[in-house]
Amino acid sequence: MTDPLKLAIAGLGTVGVGTLELLAKQDGLLTERCGRPLRVTAVSARDRTRDRGVDLSAFQWFDDAAEMAAKADADVVVELIGGSDGKAKEATEAALAAGRHVVTANKALIALHGTALAAAAEDAGVTLAYEAAVAGAIPIIRAMREGLSGNRISRLHGILNGTCNYILTTMRETGRSFDDVLAEAQELGFAEADPSFDIDGVDTAHKLAILASLAFGSKVDFDGVHVEGIRHITAEDIVHAEELGYRIKLLGTAEVTDEGLQQRVHPAMVPLGAPIASVEGVLNAVESESDFAGTTMLEGRGAGAGPTASAVVGDIVDIACERRTPTFGVPVSRLSEIASAPMERHVGPYYVRLMVYDKPGVFADVAAILRDHEISMEAVIQRARSATEAVPVVLTTHETRESSMMGAVDAIALLDAVHERPCVIRIERP
Amino acid sequence: MTDPLKLAIAGLGTVGVGTLELLAKQDGLLTERCGRPLRVTAVSARDRTRDRGVDLSAFQWFDDAAEMAAKADADVVVELIGGSDGKAKEATEAALAAGRHVVTANKALIALHGTALAAAAEDAGVTLAYEAAVAGAIPIIRAMREGLSGNRISRLHGILNGTCNYILTTMRETGRSFDDVLAEAQELGFAEADPSFDIDGVDTAHKLAILASLAFGSKVDFDGVHVEGIRHITAEDIVHAEELGYRIKLLGTAEVTDEGLQQRVHPAMVPLGAPIASVEGVLNAVESESDFAGTTMLEGRGAGAGPTASAVVGDIVDIACERRTPTFGVPVSRLSEIASAPMERHVGPYYVRLMVYDKPGVFADVAAILRDHEISMEAVIQRARSATEAVPVVLTTHETRESSMMGAVDAIALLDAVHERPCVIRIERP
Repeated sequence: MTDPLKLAIAGLGTVGVGTLELLAKQDGLLTERCGRPLRVTAVSARDRTRDRGVDLSAFQWFDDAAEMAAKADADVVVELIGGSDGKAKEATEAALAAGRHVVTANKALIALHGTALAAAAEDAGVTLAYEAAVAGAIPIIRAMREGLSGNRISRLHGILNGTCNYILTTMRETGRSFDDVLAEAQELGFAEADPSFDIDGVDTAHKLAILASLAFGSKVDFDGVHVEGIRHITAEDIVHAEELGYRIKLLGTAEVTDEGLQQRVHPAMVPLGAPIASVEGVLNAVESESDFAGTTMLEGRGAGAGPTASAVVGDIVDIACERRTPTFGVPVSRLSEIASAPMERHVGPYYVRLMVYDKPGVFADVAAILRDHEISMEAVIQRARSATEAVPVVLTTHETRESSMMGAVDAIALLDAVHERPCVIRIERP
Repeated sequence: MTDPLKLAIAGLGTVGVGTLELLAKQDGLLTERCGRPLRVTAVSARDRTRDRGVDLSAFQWFDDAAEMAAKADADVVVELIGGSDGKAKEATEAALAAGRHVVTANKALIALHGTALAAAAEDAGVTLAYEAAVAGAIPIIRAMREGLSGNRISRLHGILNGTCNYILTTMRETGRSFDDVLAEAQELGFAEADPSFDIDGVDTAHKLAILASLAFGSKVDFDGVHVEGIRHITAEDIVHAEELGYRIKLLGTAEVTDEGLQQRVHPAMVPLGAPIASVEGVLNAVESESDFAGTTMLEGRGAGAGPTASAVVGDIVDIACERRTPTFGVPVSRLSEIASAPMERHVGPYYVRLMVYDKPGVFADVAAILRDHEISMEAVIQRARSATEAVPVVLTTHETRESSMMGAVDAIALLDAVHERPCVIRIERP
């Protein structure tokens, strides 16, 4: 096992270049750890002429990633192109078909096509590894799949998108608006020019679907994820949350309930004392509950060239050391299909912010609607008063079924004195 | 690979019985995950007649663990006896000599004899696994050895002993004394009848030496660990710490410095905002710094039947799935020997509490001693005054060398107005 392990790298963006840099810098260390050298033999990207600050002259160049995946002199194809379809999928399929191992950082690809790709990897007798696809440098895939393998995991939740966590943290620290902080995050490079994948929760949903599959031994079911983003969160909601003893986080939560597999991504109020509440800025964290291990939390940097390259290379080292694990912990034939629990059946406490014109009788109308939907109020706060402008009224409820809450909100939105559709944020209790 | 993996379990205390219970409860799940059943074939303990609440009739009984390790019909010997020598060591050596894999929860054994045992495992071509030896349910061995394998780890520190963390947390929350809280912890079963291994830092030092070996690719060097416990911490120190913006934790810290490998276990003041400061009660956590992954923290339950059994079974599943890793990440021949950095060369800020009789001139004497040792003071607090009793004076310093600090403390202790040897606690800054 002293022959080099040969790598072909598809995609030379931030992560691709970061991976090349890591491999070069840690060459001696990695050879020690693997008992054999790791050698990049080929690379591929769209534009050969672009200056990426790294010397590519030693590698065979391919304009086409799928062609490289099929033909390059390589044992492992490292897919760092991104996107659920197109070139990333083609290259991955071509590599597996040619009997090469694949290491990818592509959450969309695994969330949408994970089961089929895992089956292809199994047929070819090769590894499909994706530690970098979820929570960057945090070795969460390994922890769920191997570290907790003696447990039945009942529930997991995580902060899986650094952009959203950065925006929510900065809004809280500075009192500034969502739009303002987003614009700044874009300038600083913490948010994409088109930020919708991040802030609308899709990126979190991709990662959640992958974690849920590992945790529950079920086929990845991205379509079963209920997804909401953070665009509607105001600085005022964050202040109200703190007053009530909560912090707002974009959480991905997966849980097997009597109704089936519940996978949901939405802003959530978590108690200030909960460990996940203090995961701030661009950090990610995943907390899981299991029957023997209890609660375990892993925290770290979820994105960026270094952390992502760290995870990619960890997977390459596993392949070099011949440590093999089925893509989702067990062979595809043993993955179950768990029916998806409809979001309307979710039960929990809620925070609702109404913008109301301060007229006599508004409270009575709202209270009557809640009563008619069998919703029990926990608290009501109205601080500001104004004769002319809508002012916020915040209420929290005891355990309520989602369908009742949504029915009540529809009815409340129709009241004359209510200015806009109420903002609803689910409260998570440990 | 559908033959059962046969297990012989040595030691039927809390963890041994917990492991039997986990294996029984998760039988179906584990067979799925391993693709083959896990079967206990033999057990061993000192007293066959003791009622342990589990049915042992299906297993071959051995009075002697080493005999079982050599002779039982087993692929894996699970060593849950404990202790660095005696039966635990004999059984482990016998198992490896007989070509059986070993899974152990024994930190003392690995910390003191890890290198020799790893070499024996290598010679026999079998696995020696010990995820349960450090931080219970937290998959920290895997994370350091495989998850972060692309990184050069520069530093790690952890809360590795739940008993100490419980005592310090309870002292802070209730203002009660060390002795009082220790007695209660013993009643509740969170502390042993003889608590010295825990509270004097030895248990933490065992775990730290193991983690340092994995992090730095060096031979385990338990003798190189500087060890202090928490007996001298008072409720007052905890209050002062909070006032100064710190929380007191028993930390194990390992770091490669210009002076060599520094491994130290002692109470430390960590900033209140640091993630590790909010790891409370019986929880454990390990934080590591590495060049590409950045800061990663893993938190969870570090002891108890369930969490420890979870880690033990995780290792058994790896063996069942034929996932092999050298004991310390690389073969023993590639482990380095890093000279141990003398504690006197440590540099950092310090907290010092003096108990002084409140006479004119005390401050001048103390200040002169600090000046003579070239120690620069950051703050001095004296709240209480008394004409008759010693009162606490707390001072903090800027970066200071350990040898200077200890010299100054020796001199201060000799002052007439100083009642007892000053309490010194090192301050850790991120």
